[in-house]
Amino acid sequence: MNSRRDFLQKLAASAIAFPSLSYLTTAAPLTGCNTLHDGPVLRVAIMGLGSYGTRVAEAMRSCTKAKLVGAISGHPDKLKSWQTRYNIPEKNCYNYENYDAIRNNPDIDAVYVITPNALHKEAVIRIAKAGKHAISEKPMSVNARDGQEMVDACKKAGVKLLVGYRMHFEPHTLQVVGMRKSGQFGTVRFFQGLSGFTIGDPTQWRLNKQLSGGGSLMDIGIYSINGARYMIGEDPIWVTAQEIKTDKVKFKEGVDETIQFQLGFPSGAVASCLSTYSMNNLDRFFLDGSQGWAEMWPSTGYGPIKGRTHLGEINQPIVTHQTVQMDEMSGIILQGQQPVVPVDGEEGVKDLKIIDGIYAAIALGKRVDLQL
Amino acid sequence: MNSRRDFLQKLAASAIAFPSLSYLTTAAPLTGCNTLHDGPVLRVAIMGLGSYGTRVAEAMRSCTKAKLVGAISGHPDKLKSWQTRYNIPEKNCYNYENYDAIRNNPDIDAVYVITPNALHKEAVIRIAKAGKHAISEKPMSVNARDGQEMVDACKKAGVKLLVGYRMHFEPHTLQVVGMRKSGQFGTVRFFQGLSGFTIGDPTQWRLNKQLSGGGSLMDIGIYSINGARYMIGEDPIWVTAQEIKTDKVKFKEGVDETIQFQLGFPSGAVASCLSTYSMNNLDRFFLDGSQGWAEMWPSTGYGPIKGRTHLGEINQPIVTHQTVQMDEMSGIILQGQQPVVPVDGEEGVKDLKIIDGIYAAIALGKRVDLQL
Repeated sequence: MNSRRDFLQKLAASAIAFPSLSYLTTAAPLTGCNTLHDGPVLRVAIMGLGSYGTRVAEAMRSCTKAKLVGAISGHPDKLKSWQTRYNIPEKNCYNYENYDAIRNNPDIDAVYVITPNALHKEAVIRIAKAGKHAISEKPMSVNARDGQEMVDACKKAGVKLLVGYRMHFEPHTLQVVGMRKSGQFGTVRFFQGLSGFTIGDPTQWRLNKQLSGGGSLMDIGIYSINGARYMIGEDPIWVTAQEIKTDKVKFKEGVDETIQFQLGFPSGAVASCLSTYSMNNLDRFFLDGSQGWAEMWPSTGYGPIKGRTHLGEINQPIVTHQTVQMDEMSGIILQGQQPVVPVDGEEGVKDLKIIDGIYAAIALGKRVDLQL
Repeated sequence: MNSRRDFLQKLAASAIAFPSLSYLTTAAPLTGCNTLHDGPVLRVAIMGLGSYGTRVAEAMRSCTKAKLVGAISGHPDKLKSWQTRYNIPEKNCYNYENYDAIRNNPDIDAVYVITPNALHKEAVIRIAKAGKHAISEKPMSVNARDGQEMVDACKKAGVKLLVGYRMHFEPHTLQVVGMRKSGQFGTVRFFQGLSGFTIGDPTQWRLNKQLSGGGSLMDIGIYSINGARYMIGEDPIWVTAQEIKTDKVKFKEGVDETIQFQLGFPSGAVASCLSTYSMNNLDRFFLDGSQGWAEMWPSTGYGPIKGRTHLGEINQPIVTHQTVQMDEMSGIILQGQQPVVPVDGEEGVKDLKIIDGIYAAIALGKRVDLQL
């Protein structure tokens, strides 16, 4: 156990009894974490200190059940900067050559892999072999076969594997899921997901097939894929898809710019989705049932989610998604809690099977059956 | 010329000069038409006195440039009732056997065909041969080949052929079309149209392939087809489509319950549409451009159209669509006016080519190229 963390944690718990020491608890956020709760705390190392890794790190300052304690990066300067910024001890910092040694570090429980998509697989398998729990940013890998290997490796190693599905903990989203489960929309027949934005810098890894495994579908389209499943509450049995490319310079072979795809579900419900790197304002979900409907816009962005149903506006707390995600993942990993919508490796593989199906449907020019 | 109509029209125009006769102008709505304007008035016979025919007849009470003067029906009792209700003279009433004699009736300018879809073709061709202008309810026929024959017949006969595209005159719709034309949305990349409702009585002609030519696509899906074209401002070059049927008793062979279809446009814009007879609340358009967006919900229903754009709510007058349509069609037929969005036979054929393409794409299970 991290003795400093334990110390702070105990102080926090005893702050009322020792009011003169309460400055330590208010000082905690500055050192990288909010007041910790009086239960098990997930001690996390982040691998990949890019923009999203930084976003997670910042969000974790407000966590109460999870704490950023380590970092893995190929950039010594970034590691240095994170040590200061998030109060990470030198001994909890690794590079891509030596991070298997994390096995010998008793102060790290889990590693959150926030590298380019194609690198998730090797990282998760090495983390599992090091006996640490793994959280993979989504997509968990670039195809379902790789995803399944990751699941198998973590199972074999006896560690948990979660995927960074932050929306599965978002209150507006959960209200709609709850309303659907309790039948408030009647029979659900249709889901529409529009997921896209205009991507900038053409040199970024997201536009490099070797690192990203694809294009918009891997990055943003997956929100509609996953959303279709949690909104409808079923797994699709077929997919059709169409690709449109207007800029072959920016979006090279194998990097999709815009894909429309359609999913068919066992009940007869259908989903119509769009994934794009070339449109603005596309972050909309719509769920239609025989008795009502839900609309979310924005539906998956980092900022406040807004939504309304046939009953009116959805009023739920505005949360920092990654803060809630990491606190909830702490409960899942350390206490065996079950989330309302799964975030485990199997969930990630399902989305990858759909992604594989979408690319196959485009290549074949016809409908592809799915077995999730 | 209808002398009674001329008399009333002149009275209306001179009402200010002869105030003692002004009761005649206020009485006019009761006799089937509002105060007529001081220009040419389109004298219309309606063929097919069902629910939509009645809706048009009621709407025409408020027309100022068009007037309901005749009726064609296979039901003598309906003709009788319409004579009374809309002040239609006996001599302007026909049945399906004798309506070619309309050729000899100088008091009728045009016939609005509001029969089941599959009957439009023969009716329009006979009307054209009788030397009268034809307005066909949409879809103008059940396939593009038939539609083209109708266009050719009207051209040969020297009469106009219009299709009942009421949305082409609807103010909220025209505002969005105008904003798109003036570039206020930037580059338009995406249109989404959801058109559907839960259809009732399973014995109605709309669920009889022989009369309807199809199912939801012919009836309600055509709004998304047509909307995709006027919203994006281009004609599609390819289509893909997927059919879903949950009730094979109600929706027999050849009668589509739910179809999703996607259209690709020359600019790279795409449309994603849904046509259904099994869902509620589905009357939504969404247009997305690089600089802004428009949303309409309801987008094509008979009631008030509501819409908003990135600039805010669309504030336009609430109109009775069929009233405006018939007044505008009067200007098109009698004065050669050009509508903002075409409503001629060629426009109707374009939609039918897309409908043919959608059914072909479903049958073939792959993308179908379009040449509109």
